[in-house]
Amino acid sequence: MDFQPTERQLYWRDRVKDFIEQHVRPAVPTYKAQDEEGDRWKVIPVVEELKAKAKGAGIWNLFMPPRNDGHHHVEETYEFEGPGLTNLEYAMCAEEMGRIGFASEVFNCSAPDTGNMEVFHRYGTREQKDQWLTPLMNGEIRSAFLMTEPDVASSDATNIECRIEREGDEYVINGRKWWSSGAGDPRCKVAIVMGKTDFGAQRHQQQSMVLMPLDADGVNIIRHLPVFGYDDAPHGHMEIELKDVRIPATNMLLGEGRGFEIAQGRLGPGRIHHCMRTIGAAEEALEKMCRRLQSREAFGKPIYKHSVWEERVARARIDIDMTRLLCLKAADMMDKVGNKAAKQEIAMIKVQAPNMALRIIDDAIQAHGGGGVSNDYGLAKAYAGQRTLRLADGPDEVHARSIARMEFAKHAPDPGEVSFSSGDMGATR
Amino acid sequence: MDFQPTERQLYWRDRVKDFIEQHVRPAVPTYKAQDEEGDRWKVIPVVEELKAKAKGAGIWNLFMPPRNDGHHHVEETYEFEGPGLTNLEYAMCAEEMGRIGFASEVFNCSAPDTGNMEVFHRYGTREQKDQWLTPLMNGEIRSAFLMTEPDVASSDATNIECRIEREGDEYVINGRKWWSSGAGDPRCKVAIVMGKTDFGAQRHQQQSMVLMPLDADGVNIIRHLPVFGYDDAPHGHMEIELKDVRIPATNMLLGEGRGFEIAQGRLGPGRIHHCMRTIGAAEEALEKMCRRLQSREAFGKPIYKHSVWEERVARARIDIDMTRLLCLKAADMMDKVGNKAAKQEIAMIKVQAPNMALRIIDDAIQAHGGGGVSNDYGLAKAYAGQRTLRLADGPDEVHARSIARMEFAKHAPDPGEVSFSSGDMGATR
Amino acid sequence: MDFQPTERQLYWRDRVKDFIEQHVRPAVPTYKAQDEEGDRWKVIPVVEELKAKAKGAGIWNLFMPPRNDGHHHVEETYEFEGPGLTNLEYAMCAEEMGRIGFASEVFNCSAPDTGNMEVFHRYGTREQKDQWLTPLMNGEIRSAFLMTEPDVASSDATNIECRIEREGDEYVINGRKWWSSGAGDPRCKVAIVMGKTDFGAQRHQQQSMVLMPLDADGVNIIRHLPVFGYDDAPHGHMEIELKDVRIPATNMLLGEGRGFEIAQGRLGPGRIHHCMRTIGAAEEALEKMCRRLQSREAFGKPIYKHSVWEERVARARIDIDMTRLLCLKAADMMDKVGNKAAKQEIAMIKVQAPNMALRIIDDAIQAHGGGGVSNDYGLAKAYAGQRTLRLADGPDEVHARSIARMEFAKHAPDPGEVSFSSGDMGATR
Amino acid sequence: MDFQPTERQLYWRDRVKDFIEQHVRPAVPTYKAQDEEGDRWKVIPVVEELKAKAKGAGIWNLFMPPRNDGHHHVEETYEFEGPGLTNLEYAMCAEEMGRIGFASEVFNCSAPDTGNMEVFHRYGTREQKDQWLTPLMNGEIRSAFLMTEPDVASSDATNIECRIEREGDEYVINGRKWWSSGAGDPRCKVAIVMGKTDFGAQRHQQQSMVLMPLDADGVNIIRHLPVFGYDDAPHGHMEIELKDVRIPATNMLLGEGRGFEIAQGRLGPGRIHHCMRTIGAAEEALEKMCRRLQSREAFGKPIYKHSVWEERVARARIDIDMTRLLCLKAADMMDKVGNKAAKQEIAMIKVQAPNMALRIIDDAIQAHGGGGVSNDYGLAKAYAGQRTLRLADGPDEVHARSIARMEFAKHAPDPGEVSFSSGDMGATR
Repeated sequence: MDFQPTERQLYWRDRVKDFIEQHVRPAVPTYKAQDEEGDRWKVIPVVEELKAKAKGAGIWNLFMPPRNDGHHHVEETYEFEGPGLTNLEYAMCAEEMGRIGFASEVFNCSAPDTGNMEVFHRYGTREQKDQWLTPLMNGEIRSAFLMTEPDVASSDATNIECRIEREGDEYVINGRKWWSSGAGDPRCKVAIVMGKTDFGAQRHQQQSMVLMPLDADGVNIIRHLPVFGYDDAPHGHMEIELKDVRIPATNMLLGEGRGFEIAQGRLGPGRIHHCMRTIGAAEEALEKMCRRLQSREAFGKPIYKHSVWEERVARARIDIDMTRLLCLKAADMMDKVGNKAAKQEIAMIKVQAPNMALRIIDDAIQAHGGGGVSNDYGLAKAYAGQRTLRLADGPDEVHARSIARMEFAKHAPDPGEVSFSSGDMGATR
Repeated sequence: MDFQPTERQLYWRDRVKDFIEQHVRPAVPTYKAQDEEGDRWKVIPVVEELKAKAKGAGIWNLFMPPRNDGHHHVEETYEFEGPGLTNLEYAMCAEEMGRIGFASEVFNCSAPDTGNMEVFHRYGTREQKDQWLTPLMNGEIRSAFLMTEPDVASSDATNIECRIEREGDEYVINGRKWWSSGAGDPRCKVAIVMGKTDFGAQRHQQQSMVLMPLDADGVNIIRHLPVFGYDDAPHGHMEIELKDVRIPATNMLLGEGRGFEIAQGRLGPGRIHHCMRTIGAAEEALEKMCRRLQSREAFGKPIYKHSVWEERVARARIDIDMTRLLCLKAADMMDKVGNKAAKQEIAMIKVQAPNMALRIIDDAIQAHGGGGVSNDYGLAKAYAGQRTLRLADGPDEVHARSIARMEFAKHAPDPGEVSFSSGDMGATR
Repeated sequence: MDFQPTERQLYWRDRVKDFIEQHVRPAVPTYKAQDEEGDRWKVIPVVEELKAKAKGAGIWNLFMPPRNDGHHHVEETYEFEGPGLTNLEYAMCAEEMGRIGFASEVFNCSAPDTGNMEVFHRYGTREQKDQWLTPLMNGEIRSAFLMTEPDVASSDATNIECRIEREGDEYVINGRKWWSSGAGDPRCKVAIVMGKTDFGAQRHQQQSMVLMPLDADGVNIIRHLPVFGYDDAPHGHMEIELKDVRIPATNMLLGEGRGFEIAQGRLGPGRIHHCMRTIGAAEEALEKMCRRLQSREAFGKPIYKHSVWEERVARARIDIDMTRLLCLKAADMMDKVGNKAAKQEIAMIKVQAPNMALRIIDDAIQAHGGGGVSNDYGLAKAYAGQRTLRLADGPDEVHARSIARMEFAKHAPDPGEVSFSSGDMGATR
Repeated sequence: MDFQPTERQLYWRDRVKDFIEQHVRPAVPTYKAQDEEGDRWKVIPVVEELKAKAKGAGIWNLFMPPRNDGHHHVEETYEFEGPGLTNLEYAMCAEEMGRIGFASEVFNCSAPDTGNMEVFHRYGTREQKDQWLTPLMNGEIRSAFLMTEPDVASSDATNIECRIEREGDEYVINGRKWWSSGAGDPRCKVAIVMGKTDFGAQRHQQQSMVLMPLDADGVNIIRHLPVFGYDDAPHGHMEIELKDVRIPATNMLLGEGRGFEIAQGRLGPGRIHHCMRTIGAAEEALEKMCRRLQSREAFGKPIYKHSVWEERVARARIDIDMTRLLCLKAADMMDKVGNKAAKQEIAMIKVQAPNMALRIIDDAIQAHGGGGVSNDYGLAKAYAGQRTLRLADGPDEVHARSIARMEFAKHAPDPGEVSFSSGDMGATR
């Protein structure tokens, strides 16, 4: 163990950090102005400008796994690679990106494209890659991931009801999806859709994933779903009806019945990304809170000298630092012993990071008074965004369940301690 | 003590409850549709229709204090009265109104008009009443209360910087206010403005309150402040610049330097109203949570059978019931021993009610999955609304301070226990 | 509803309070000295002196239900009654008793005798009453209640394994009990024992309760169980082996298979008593905390001026007052609509009161520094005592479960909202 | 950064762990039996046996800093060294020791000796070392640290009142100390005493530390202080009166007025030790909780399948892992950049570790039912022990204050945001 970052680990982190401070942060007012004027569901010019700049600087597709990560043949994917950061290295960059809402996109590192690109990378055919991965990696198009459904508890993915039925050379898709994030963007051209190809198969082999062009007939975007009043335009979270949508049979990913397998593989790195961005958001909130508390007075002294705020700031610093260490450890384990071995750690950060951030952002809101709940400091929006992360990709409760089950498995009860219900009296006598 | 409600206490509660269930709840979809179409800053027709109906039924101005509350001369205020409910009776009605966002207005019982009407009632001259209180009580106009300022920690009201300067027969107002709720409504015609008439006076005698027509020259509404992403149109929370606004000297309330005194008197009943509405909002969230948890399955059983939800629902029930009892006790004390004697209780519910409701609404959001953070169940909006109440009329911290100081005063330290810092060695030997 | 206590309600509260302040509190040092010297499992003389004094003053057996409580024939129980306080009136007395650990016993109102006396009162035969209830009501003997067992999760009382087998005119008892509180006291002469008479009957009709003299052959007190490090001598919490203990068949209470029914009836009032004493303990801790914080300085000002303590004291005051109101409401409901109707409220206070008190006592410990964890201020002992109440008579989790189930029953899901797992696709289409 | 432990890091951890599992854990019943029989303030034979074994195996004085830690001249201290573990390496060992209460002492690594030995090591003269450090390092004697006083808020060390006055070749000590841990042990021969040599000097230069033989005239051990009823014999926490205690002037450490400086240096490594032992205690509690929950059934299924326990176990695993990472990071920083640079991290773990452990141990108590609060599972004792750590070496509040102040210093307010109270109107216009 060594808690000092190496030069290489700092290299990318610092490049990202510097780029953000020099180019992205100064562009925030422009972004806001462009976002708010006219139609809200449009491309925001300053983002495209910043993307070009970041791409030119080589700070691009940083999330793409290094060549030797064991998931693909080196030759085959030669063209589809980023600068080869480890999960740990990328995690440190993701934190920086999390400080400003749209920063990830500037580096072509924003969800759900990152997860989708990984899916293409690992499971896509050469043809699928050429068609979709290339423009995604170039930042020319965007993508969506259609899994959650409004009518069932999607936290248990076996509940999913969307049907993907084979008819000749095609699949026909019928279902209703919601929280399809990013599908509001005019650049969004393709979606990965999770559905069931065989309702009679074993619980975890009924599901498949297919590639669906967003402009296919029968893809009806019903509405956008606001998050605490925010529409998150132009990204958006859409409700989409899929009505007899026909796609070529070659759009199947990996094979029928392998949807769960892909879902598992997709989630690991994405959770690191999300959680590290969450940590960045928490740091940003803490910084704002500290500044604000030092800038105002009440009852005869600066507010930051009231000890109730000392407690909250101390707690924030402790919680952020601990959560970061846990995330980085999870990332390092993924690099060194694989996603599977890091399973408990990945579930742990999924629960920990958003809950931690929500408390800190809420305290920061309180520190800002009325300004905190408005849009002036970005805190209410940050809160709303983080709140979704206690639900997205499985609610807290599902992950707590996984963590606990792994823990229980480590500690079998002492044989002498096992008791039985009253029906089994013989055993205890 | 007797915890059973009397018939009279139930009478008004049930009238309000029945009216809401029969007329207001069914109108919610119409309200939403009218609110969302076209200009957002307009009168919503269905509200006016419901107001007419409620007024006709005599369920109107219920908050107005009974004639013998000791604050005014019976003769003088003869015309300006409601049906004479006690604070306790009204509190029970307010809870019902809190279940649906716009229900209070239907009964002409919504903030900030209620507090403003009380101010007119207690402190207004006959002329001031004729001009403003009459149309307010008729539900013809609405009003605003301009106290909080963006540039200072307004939690400490002595920080207020707005200037009210006498020039001949007029006062000239200069300042900047924000969180002026309701000032976005086209029906809003008058504001009570808190400012300083004498920066050199004692700390609590520098402030005065004046009546300011909203259409006066120099009243510039700068923008509306969203709460999280909600604009709360047509009510709105406005930022207002006051630039050389001239009002007649007769618009002074009670007298120069008596602003604090009015502020104190204004707040008591209003806090009961707010807190009881908050309890209604919490009940509504709990009901939605229970329904939802019973309607979905995950991992082989209905979600409500997972014991983590049993814990949360039990906690919600306990917290709501306790908070209600504390609010009703505070209301009863106000009725029987006066606002001053209930001071600690009023501060207690001010801290307790919104924090309680926020936790329950947040759990309800979690129970609803993605639907919870959207607008489909009203929960995210309820959360945003309650979150402002930890800040409005003084943040939690200020009220906790008051409660604690009253508590400390009850328990003087044991004389033998007082120690002194090291400089006072003589005393301890 | 009326939150002002009546004269009659204050009458008994004040008599108890005055007696405690005049006689019990001044005797605390004597109690401690007598308790600590010599054998710990002995009668403490000052308690007997105070009992005589309280009995003489008529402040005695206050917990005994009033004659017309509907549970018994008036003629039959004529001799076995106290001064006839309602549950609400007694609750207010119980709070006062809770301020000092041994005060309840002074008034012959301490657990488990109170619950046991109620059982005799309601379910005992005239002979059983003459033999045991009379000396218990006279304060001549004490009693125990043997329910919990070390080998099973006794939170689910159907797990109980103690056997009560009929042999001719006798019952033979075999089993192992623990947490038999009070069985360490030399005055403890009788126990109510819960066991199973029919392992083959329905789940809730297997259990019976019998009366067992503590000096019967086969009653082996194995050891006392400390609570944290406190032995609670001479009361004590004992582990008891019951080995072929023979009792006359007439010692059966109410009838075979009715143990659950008795257990239900026994618990209601006892929970009020416990919870109100808990509130008294919390008030005592809050008072000590306030005194201490005002008596010391750190970092240039009295500690009570640090706002983190303002928050804690405010929270304590809010929580105590809310919990008290909920307890009093539950008591009032028991008086007016019966134990059954108050079932949810009783479960609520069972969860709420000890958790509330533990937090306050813990804060008080923190306020006292090292002194807090020692025996100097009684806080660590109070904490240990309250901690057991999250387990005794059913752990928190069991009561939360009951509360939640009653809540869910109030809110059936909207028919349109019920969904089904994927196997039931037909239903949702 | 690298989260994988190196072989060297595992080497000592595993040696300690194996020794504990092979020798210490099996000796727990013997320890308990010897501890409880006869006089409680005596040497416990099995500890001495285990010490001999550990010393023979070279697992001894592991805490002693490596030779090149910059705090001492290599030649001078040649004889006074351990095997040279880094703070990080030792931290991993300390966690293992924390699993069993007396394990630290077996390796001659228990407080307060460790901190005292470090003080001798860094600040002692050759004579002082020969006299005291040698027998301490040999495990022949033990020591105490006398700082906290009953009469002042010792959290603010400037409050200390003990006087150390020079008279000729001697110092005369007068004062009263408490929580002098370990002073109950018959092997305890020397104490480091903090007192004031100059009440007129600057606040942090009034204090000095001296070496005081415990058998000096005037050292009167008044009593032992129990912790939640536990006497912690033979170690004990003593209250000691110092009445005209005379010691040679050569017993001054480092020089008059340098007490604060020594205190600062002493605390860093000790906090790592304490916190890592705390983590060991938390792991032990979690393990017991998992075992217990899997061994019992209630309401028709094993208790561990109730989701409320899944939440608690998941939270425990997350909190332990995060806290451990923070502690190890702090240790690594001390090794690489020094105690001063790790100041915030050290304060953070001081607050975090015991609070984390207390919650987990409390949950484990709850999982064990009545057994949890007794001595059967060691959980109540663990709770009591950890509770003192929120007070010892400065209460939470003092450390939160330090953390917050360091945090505020990082984030100066935006110049434009600083406002001023109303007296400074000019500045904001």
